Amino acid sequence: MRPLTNLVTAWESNKTFGENFSIMLRWKRSVYKLLWKHMLIYFLVYILLSIIDQFILHENGKRNFRAMAEHCSRYSGSINLMVMLGFFTSTAMQRLFSMQTTVPGTAKSITIFISSLKPDLLEGAMIIEQFARWQLLAWVLTFRLVCRPLRKIYPDLKSLEATGLLTPEERGIMEDPDQTKQSTPCVLVVFDWMLLLLKETFIQKRYFNESNYLKNVDTLMAFKKSCGNVIKFATQNISPALVQAVVLSVYCFGCITVMARMFSKEDAPISSAFISYVPVLPAMQFFIYFAWLCFGKAALDPFGDDEDDIDVPQMVKLHIENAERLKGLYGMHLEKVFPNLPQKHYNSAPV
Amino acid sequence: MRPLTNLVTAWESNKTFGENFSIMLRWKRSVYKLLWKHMLIYFLVYILLSIIDQFILHENGKRNFRAMAEHCSRYSGSINLMVMLGFFTSTAMQRLFSMQTTVPGTAKSITIFISSLKPDLLEGAMIIEQFARWQLLAWVLTFRLVCRPLRKIYPDLKSLEATGLLTPEERGIMEDPDQTKQSTPCVLVVFDWMLLLLKETFIQKRYFNESNYLKNVDTLMAFKKSCGNVIKFATQNISPALVQAVVLSVYCFGCITVMARMFSKEDAPISSAFISYVPVLPAMQFFIYFAWLCFGKAALDPFGDDEDDIDVPQMVKLHIENAERLKGLYGMHLEKVFPNLPQKHYNSAPV
Amino acid sequence: MRPLTNLVTAWESNKTFGENFSIMLRWKRSVYKLLWKHMLIYFLVYILLSIIDQFILHENGKRNFRAMAEHCSRYSGSINLMVMLGFFTSTAMQRLFSMQTTVPGTAKSITIFISSLKPDLLEGAMIIEQFARWQLLAWVLTFRLVCRPLRKIYPDLKSLEATGLLTPEERGIMEDPDQTKQSTPCVLVVFDWMLLLLKETFIQKRYFNESNYLKNVDTLMAFKKSCGNVIKFATQNISPALVQAVVLSVYCFGCITVMARMFSKEDAPISSAFISYVPVLPAMQFFIYFAWLCFGKAALDPFGDDEDDIDVPQMVKLHIENAERLKGLYGMHLEKVFPNLPQKHYNSAPV
Amino acid sequence: MRPLTNLVTAWESNKTFGENFSIMLRWKRSVYKLLWKHMLIYFLVYILLSIIDQFILHENGKRNFRAMAEHCSRYSGSINLMVMLGFFTSTAMQRLFSMQTTVPGTAKSITIFISSLKPDLLEGAMIIEQFARWQLLAWVLTFRLVCRPLRKIYPDLKSLEATGLLTPEERGIMEDPDQTKQSTPCVLVVFDWMLLLLKETFIQKRYFNESNYLKNVDTLMAFKKSCGNVIKFATQNISPALVQAVVLSVYCFGCITVMARMFSKEDAPISSAFISYVPVLPAMQFFIYFAWLCFGKAALDPFGDDEDDIDVPQMVKLHIENAERLKGLYGMHLEKVFPNLPQKHYNSAPV
Amino acid sequence: MRPLTNLVTAWESNKTFGENFSIMLRWKRSVYKLLWKHMLIYFLVYILLSIIDQFILHENGKRNFRAMAEHCSRYSGSINLMVMLGFFTSTAMQRLFSMQTTVPGTAKSITIFISSLKPDLLEGAMIIEQFARWQLLAWVLTFRLVCRPLRKIYPDLKSLEATGLLTPEERGIMEDPDQTKQSTPCVLVVFDWMLLLLKETFIQKRYFNESNYLKNVDTLMAFKKSCGNVIKFATQNISPALVQAVVLSVYCFGCITVMARMFSKEDAPISSAFISYVPVLPAMQFFIYFAWLCFGKAALDPFGDDEDDIDVPQMVKLHIENAERLKGLYGMHLEKVFPNLPQKHYNSAPV
Repeated sequence: MRPLTNLVTAWESNKTFGENFSIMLRWKRSVYKLLWKHMLIYFLVYILLSIIDQFILHENGKRNFRAMAEHCSRYSGSINLMVMLGFFTSTAMQRLFSMQTTVPGTAKSITIFISSLKPDLLEGAMIIEQFARWQLLAWVLTFRLVCRPLRKIYPDLKSLEATGLLTPEERGIMEDPDQTKQSTPCVLVVFDWMLLLLKETFIQKRYFNESNYLKNVDTLMAFKKSCGNVIKFATQNISPALVQAVVLSVYCFGCITVMARMFSKEDAPISSAFISYVPVLPAMQFFIYFAWLCFGKAALDPFGDDEDDIDVPQMVKLHIENAERLKGLYGMHLEKVFPNLPQKHYNSAPV
Repeated sequence: MRPLTNLVTAWESNKTFGENFSIMLRWKRSVYKLLWKHMLIYFLVYILLSIIDQFILHENGKRNFRAMAEHCSRYSGSINLMVMLGFFTSTAMQRLFSMQTTVPGTAKSITIFISSLKPDLLEGAMIIEQFARWQLLAWVLTFRLVCRPLRKIYPDLKSLEATGLLTPEERGIMEDPDQTKQSTPCVLVVFDWMLLLLKETFIQKRYFNESNYLKNVDTLMAFKKSCGNVIKFATQNISPALVQAVVLSVYCFGCITVMARMFSKEDAPISSAFISYVPVLPAMQFFIYFAWLCFGKAALDPFGDDEDDIDVPQMVKLHIENAERLKGLYGMHLEKVFPNLPQKHYNSAPV
Repeated sequence: MRPLTNLVTAWESNKTFGENFSIMLRWKRSVYKLLWKHMLIYFLVYILLSIIDQFILHENGKRNFRAMAEHCSRYSGSINLMVMLGFFTSTAMQRLFSMQTTVPGTAKSITIFISSLKPDLLEGAMIIEQFARWQLLAWVLTFRLVCRPLRKIYPDLKSLEATGLLTPEERGIMEDPDQTKQSTPCVLVVFDWMLLLLKETFIQKRYFNESNYLKNVDTLMAFKKSCGNVIKFATQNISPALVQAVVLSVYCFGCITVMARMFSKEDAPISSAFISYVPVLPAMQFFIYFAWLCFGKAALDPFGDDEDDIDVPQMVKLHIENAERLKGLYGMHLEKVFPNLPQKHYNSAPV
Repeated sequence: MRPLTNLVTAWESNKTFGENFSIMLRWKRSVYKLLWKHMLIYFLVYILLSIIDQFILHENGKRNFRAMAEHCSRYSGSINLMVMLGFFTSTAMQRLFSMQTTVPGTAKSITIFISSLKPDLLEGAMIIEQFARWQLLAWVLTFRLVCRPLRKIYPDLKSLEATGLLTPEERGIMEDPDQTKQSTPCVLVVFDWMLLLLKETFIQKRYFNESNYLKNVDTLMAFKKSCGNVIKFATQNISPALVQAVVLSVYCFGCITVMARMFSKEDAPISSAFISYVPVLPAMQFFIYFAWLCFGKAALDPFGDDEDDIDVPQMVKLHIENAERLKGLYGMHLEKVFPNLPQKHYNSAPV
Repeated sequence: MRPLTNLVTAWESNKTFGENFSIMLRWKRSVYKLLWKHMLIYFLVYILLSIIDQFILHENGKRNFRAMAEHCSRYSGSINLMVMLGFFTSTAMQRLFSMQTTVPGTAKSITIFISSLKPDLLEGAMIIEQFARWQLLAWVLTFRLVCRPLRKIYPDLKSLEATGLLTPEERGIMEDPDQTKQSTPCVLVVFDWMLLLLKETFIQKRYFNESNYLKNVDTLMAFKKSCGNVIKFATQNISPALVQAVVLSVYCFGCITVMARMFSKEDAPISSAFISYVPVLPAMQFFIYFAWLCFGKAALDPFGDDEDDIDVPQMVKLHIENAERLKGLYGMHLEKVFPNLPQKHYNSAPV
């Protein structure tokens, strides 16, 4: 339970009285952290322009400045980027959510493989060890392609060898141009090995039923398909030109609002000063847009190293631990865990 | 039928004449209950500001106040948060709906397990008892992670032991660092036990057909996958920064509208007083936004203890009762329920 | 073919020339029927207010009235409910469409059951009779929970007994607290009976292959799951508070527009009279909103007794007829239907 | 390849330089063809109103006309139908797309049936002939219900008999009230025949494995389910009242914009004449709305006889040809097609 | 790994500081590349119109010009195309994304076929060779129909023969009107051959279990279905009239904004010159619309030869290489790859 608790706590503290205020005041993983640099620059430029208008420009310059400011003000009112950003971010998020539920896991295929074997094989542990390691290897090689932090941890095959996911012999085969075509992605080589292992298990009659062979092939193909979907998610993503167009629009809008000003005709100095030097209202619209832009971009690349991204290196660790535990199941029996089970008197023979 | 009737009644009374009015006048689970505190503060602040303007400020202050108010009024007209809130809330809701249809249930895997066994095993009741209990345990341990009310009811393993979902022996194994790695989530330990039980059942030839073994493993894996999806729903949710950005926008909008005022130029005292002291119209837009914000946030965290949330502790109770009933099916025969079935004359042997 | 023709005709007449006009002029299942009461009240209030302004109020009252009217007019322009209603109605509709395609049907499980049996059982007709009746009973008990018209037809178990879906013996068992826990929903009791029947069929070796047993259990579980989804659709629906918020917003908007008026400054009496007494334009926006609200609400509760709703009692009738026909298939042979089939010369034995 | 080429060519010519212009200038299947009648009427009415204003009305009438025109103009600016039409059309399209991918096909069930039979049956061709014909018949009877052009081609059972999809004997059975309940849809009668044929095939041991029986029943049920979904798509569609509301809104908007005019205060006769007699700008918004309305309506009824609709009669032809070809596969052997296959030396016996 | 790296690199460089600026400055696959021609023309026309107004037109012409410009300006403000484009582009993208995940692959059916065969067949390599080649052929023939670049590479059957995907004998059969009906699409002929090959394999008892036959037929049918979906995606796409309507709307909007101008009443020559000759602000809205239009159109036709399109010829190459590698698996054994596997001591016999 511990490994998940901390993730959940973030949501937990929200439900007391005044929860909205506590949401607004958080700093960690907050929108402020995301925006503060841009906000600072925006405020500085806005105030600087106000100073130029009020203290530096003369009569003529002032008139031109104000004409420009009102021109910008009129346009900024007519540009509604929210619809664009809404579609952009919600499309990116729905794509992300549907990917999240189909992300490949190694547990299922390992469990099915273990359960398909005859229960009393001497060599069982060895082949499960191989199969589980290759599953993990395929998983890591897949996510290496889409996740930069993982690519930093495992820059090459040697680093995989160092963690024990790859044996020196296997690395040799992968890197030997006589045995492996160098244009073949490594992950496909690993899938071939797994298929060969499933075949060997079939030929050597290690499945308790020969129909288990195709069942394991099916499960492996499903795993391969979800690996392929992860790669497709990252490579056949929303076009970079679209991201560029959205980023550009938001920055243009920012430039326009930083210039836009509405000058009150009445003589109200305090209010005028407030409007000129506290650009809360013009900034607000821009930062709503900017924040949505950030969420959309984060949803496009969920395997990065931002705080909100999926922590792939941690997932690798969990998958390795998980595989370790599952491997233990082959040699284990319920009676060993619970020596006093009521049904043991009915068991046909000592195990 | 009774357990569901009360849930349905809420919807039932709507269809008479004047149904829209009856919807508007309900208090229980109503939008008023959700909003009244914020509404009260909003009205008080609005009226207070009107009083300050009219009775406290002098000529000069009044001019500044009015300039500010019109500035706010102009901006509040140009900020359209509805698109943002629409995308936010509908994304959150679609995520919730798709989760609702895939929420894990224990009935299917228990039924399949019971049906897979040979029908006349003396030890049948025992192993079904174990399997059903572990299923429930896995379900509770999963929802404990995402549902605060359940975490309050079952703060630790001891409380689970007290309800009989866990035996003292099992708790001992879970808490013994020699037998269980303490970093392993408890729910995975329970899944291991179930896999071992399925294996034992296979080895002891308790399935009526050996192919039932893998079928049960498959069903269990599907259950585990939906448990995993529930946890993913809660942990890989919409980013807190996005929620913060939306909350912040709505509150900012509220602050602006509470200050915004349009002053009529004509001399119409009753109308002016109405506009100054009955802020129904400026409040309306804000409360539409605020209500959508609440629905979006509620859809993000559907396992809380709000009136509209999914009542997980009640679901636990229903699952336990359900498992109890299903366990009874193993020893039961149709002839015992209906002694006078027409087909009994064809039955090959007395059961 | 006949049972469906009338449903389809509604769509058919649309495709001639002037189809749009024929759509606009229909009354049955029309938007006019939906709106006319509200429209009448709206027009009366609008005209009444215009009369008060023009003939009753004096100079001072007129000024106040006009100030209020323009205040409302300005606000009504800035409130855009369409985005909110668009998201509300399309979310409700997508939920409805996805439910429609997964609505449970009894035909599949009955057909699978019939096909799984050995073909020449003397008791075959009896057990098929039981299974089909219980399937129908489970279907009716499920929809009773979500569909008010069905609840009126079958208010209690006695009424089900009267239609022959339940035998007196079965009702006795359901109502006897010794045999059935009274907190158990009746529909689950029926599923238990079906599971027991499937088990009896297995034990008595009535399936032509023992693997058919688990296949039937699977089909039954899938049927149960879609029954559960129907109940979830009705009980874990969009929050009543959201419906209330939407209804409230639309009515508020209506109140504002009924008061809102733009007074032309020019002296154009005919035009002014038209604007004051023919509120077509201000009404239009309101009625677009109101109509979408109605569609959204209809999509939330599709099992009611509106003209557009799913006619559940009719579906019950069709399911019963259908089950009747399917039961006939067990004893039937293709040769009996078509005595002169070419392949009959190859048939191994007279049936 | 030919049958598809022409469909694809429409898309092909778009990718040369100036593709956007070539898209805009196409007439076939164009938006112009869709709109030109409405456009013509709109322009005539607009110009007529302008003539009335300028040449027929006197001082007083002109003032009233202009007051009305500006009133309309102000309202037309505040009515934004695009959001409504966007949701309407995209909901209708998503429903259509999801239907398109699940539209029933006869190829799969026929292929499975052929592959399930023992390979050397003398009567094989006959029963495949029956099964394939009934599949086609079920397909045609289903689409007859939803597709008007098909209903014109096959107005009754006699016309089906004429094309050879139905034998006279079968029609006799369908129309004989003693053998077939007249309230039963014909398509269900055909499904019953297919189920009986599958059963006969099972009893006569014509499957190479008895488990093929239930597999074929499953495939047939899946085909029946997608037939049912097609009927549901057409009958449980978006409510006619909603379509009516949308059509009405768009036409009202058209009436308002045809009246709406903004009169420039400056003295610019050429510009004024352009604005009065070339209503390109006011027409544009209306025709965007009108076009989207047409696309939404087309997506609701995709089986009509518009150019963009699915050509169901052509599909019938393709399905018949396809079934013809598949039937040939039963008696065919790879060696007959390719007499010189390398593996023939390993074949156990001449076929 | 290499084949995918380059695709991924595009995304990789984004995450350093100033990532937004690096996105904005990229040229390859950029929005600038997409827009620059239209942008140039737009700017030239805009400046030309400004020159005409300022230097060529006289008093009277200027008045008319300005009246027109303000008329356009007022309309351009009221036309909001973003909602339309948002729905258009997001509908097109969701359709594309759902197609991407279901795009047919040859690997699965080839792997299943290889795994279904008895492991020691002498003729194994030959039939796998045939099956894999026909799979590739079916894939290529399918994508030829929807992908123009592929149609250029393989304009006819001869070109397919040249690459070795088709033997001369096979081409002869396809082109011989006596053996193949010329109206039958070639891809269906190939599917027939594969079905015949699966049947021959069954008759000659080359599957290790006879149930593998139907399993392979199923897998092949699933492959055929996804081929069919690809063709449906291209032929039953969003109506050309809709694309035309959207393109037309965006160009009309462009024409209006290029004419629209707001003239400041104040005397501010620098600002006026800026507004007249640097049309950044009016252009911005137009180019946001234009960019979204491009993305929507690109999503409609993802198999073209744009930079962002799916590179189908490259996919053909990968599928061919992949099939080559998979074919090698049949004759290969794990022991040959890894001579020192620990489990080899348990292997029953030398392979």
